Amino acid sequence: MEQPSQLSQESLEHQHAGHGAGDEAGHDSGHDAAGHAGHGYVDGRADYVRRLKRIEGQTRGLQRMVESDQYCIDILTQVSAVTRALESFALAMLEDHLRHCVARATVAGGDEAEAKITEASAAIARLVRS
Amino acid sequence: MEQPSQLSQESLEHQHAGHGAGDEAGHDSGHDAAGHAGHGYVDGRADYVRRLKRIEGQTRGLQRMVESDQYCIDILTQVSAVTRALESFALAMLEDHLRHCVARATVAGGDEAEAKITEASAAIARLVRS
Amino acid sequence: MEQPSQLSQESLEHQHAGHGAGDEAGHDSGHDAAGHAGHGYVDGRADYVRRLKRIEGQTRGLQRMVESDQYCIDILTQVSAVTRALESFALAMLEDHLRHCVARATVAGGDEAEAKITEASAAIARLVRS
Amino acid sequence: MEQPSQLSQESLEHQHAGHGAGDEAGHDSGHDAAGHAGHGYVDGRADYVRRLKRIEGQTRGLQRMVESDQYCIDILTQVSAVTRALESFALAMLEDHLRHCVARATVAGGDEAEAKITEASAAIARLVRS
Repeated sequence: MEQPSQLSQESLEHQHAGHGAGDEAGHDSGHDAAGHAGHGYVDGRADYVRRLKRIEGQTRGLQRMVESDQYCIDILTQVSAVTRALESFALAMLEDHLRHCVARATVAGGDEAEAKITEASAAIARLVRS
Repeated sequence: MEQPSQLSQESLEHQHAGHGAGDEAGHDSGHDAAGHAGHGYVDGRADYVRRLKRIEGQTRGLQRMVESDQYCIDILTQVSAVTRALESFALAMLEDHLRHCVARATVAGGDEAEAKITEASAAIARLVRS
Repeated sequence: MEQPSQLSQESLEHQHAGHGAGDEAGHDSGHDAAGHAGHGYVDGRADYVRRLKRIEGQTRGLQRMVESDQYCIDILTQVSAVTRALESFALAMLEDHLRHCVARATVAGGDEAEAKITEASAAIARLVRS
Repeated sequence: MEQPSQLSQESLEHQHAGHGAGDEAGHDSGHDAAGHAGHGYVDGRADYVRRLKRIEGQTRGLQRMVESDQYCIDILTQVSAVTRALESFALAMLEDHLRHCVARATVAGGDEAEAKITEASAAIARLVRS
């Protein structure tokens, strides 16, 4: 019915094969081999994936609730729980982004620093308004 | 983890005896026997499941983004999109709930009507605050 | 610290002196027949006004915080408190609306009932998304 | 009506030179004393106060709506507008905070930098969840 996977795993890997151009030497996460850039969340990546798998499971749970004709209000309660889990995920990633990517740009200074803060602020606005 | 259908089939059929022609022939969950009405969202169930499958796909897309080390801000943009999709799902289900379950109880009147509105209001509060 | 009450108690009482007549001259909803108590929130009107005066006072408190150069984060904490107070106000008014206006229209039935639920659902969507 | 504090760029620079003193005792009077550490929003203070005055006016408008028994849904629409205005205020102030206070601490480095990001993240979480 649905084609949830837009990009095949292969094309994703292909896309990112050349990643690492932006090698940010001195990055504290040693596990990004070969000068790979690694964003702010890279140290917690396993935890972020785990949270998303849980959210995916909750979404499948919602499908089963709808398919088995469960009570609307119980479904809505579960939707609120999934929304809160997504919010917590986003807030954690945003904090990592401020602590690493934005902080790095700020120390470097200049237009890039300004641009990073403008960009982060727009992301915060989207979270607050969604 | 989940317990489908708290109310017995009999009591549901009793409660909803007069409900319209909500029989969704060919629906994948076979437990809705002939003519059974179910909850307010039952006529749109296929659409609700479709929305949830799309949200599940988006959540898997988020996992791939994290695993392939994509940029934090792009991930956050996608999280906002998923959150909005969940909100739209919830608002549609809530409207169906008001239009069917709550309206039915209101016409019947009495304590059940009061209880339904209190319950719906609590669900709205959870949505607004999440 | 805050002076939430600008209007004297006297002027308040004066304003509400004629209350209870349900005089809604020129109001577009003609279905509120003679002696009818107006909108859903009418019994709790004094409480609603009190909440709004408190919110107004909090807003003036925010102005003083900005004018006296208080710390950004403390101001943001106070903004969140005001936002929550507005949300609680809106949720209470919405519940009253469902319990009275929408319920009345539902019992009457017909297009008006449908329209009221559509309208309430749009208001809920605005609250959820703001 | 408004008292836009006319701090010259020079005095601002002077003020910020001594940042860290954090002399915020007896805060709300004599606020721009010499050596005081002006927060991130100080250049836009007149605009922030103007926004808050508008929000205060909207709140008084809400009181009049309730007192004159206006329609619930119209009141709720106006509440959503006020909530959005508060959100925009908070997002602007947060961006100023990131651009000035947090950036300053980040350049200085150390525990203070970490603490500022933790603190800003908690404020963002309150905004997202309120």
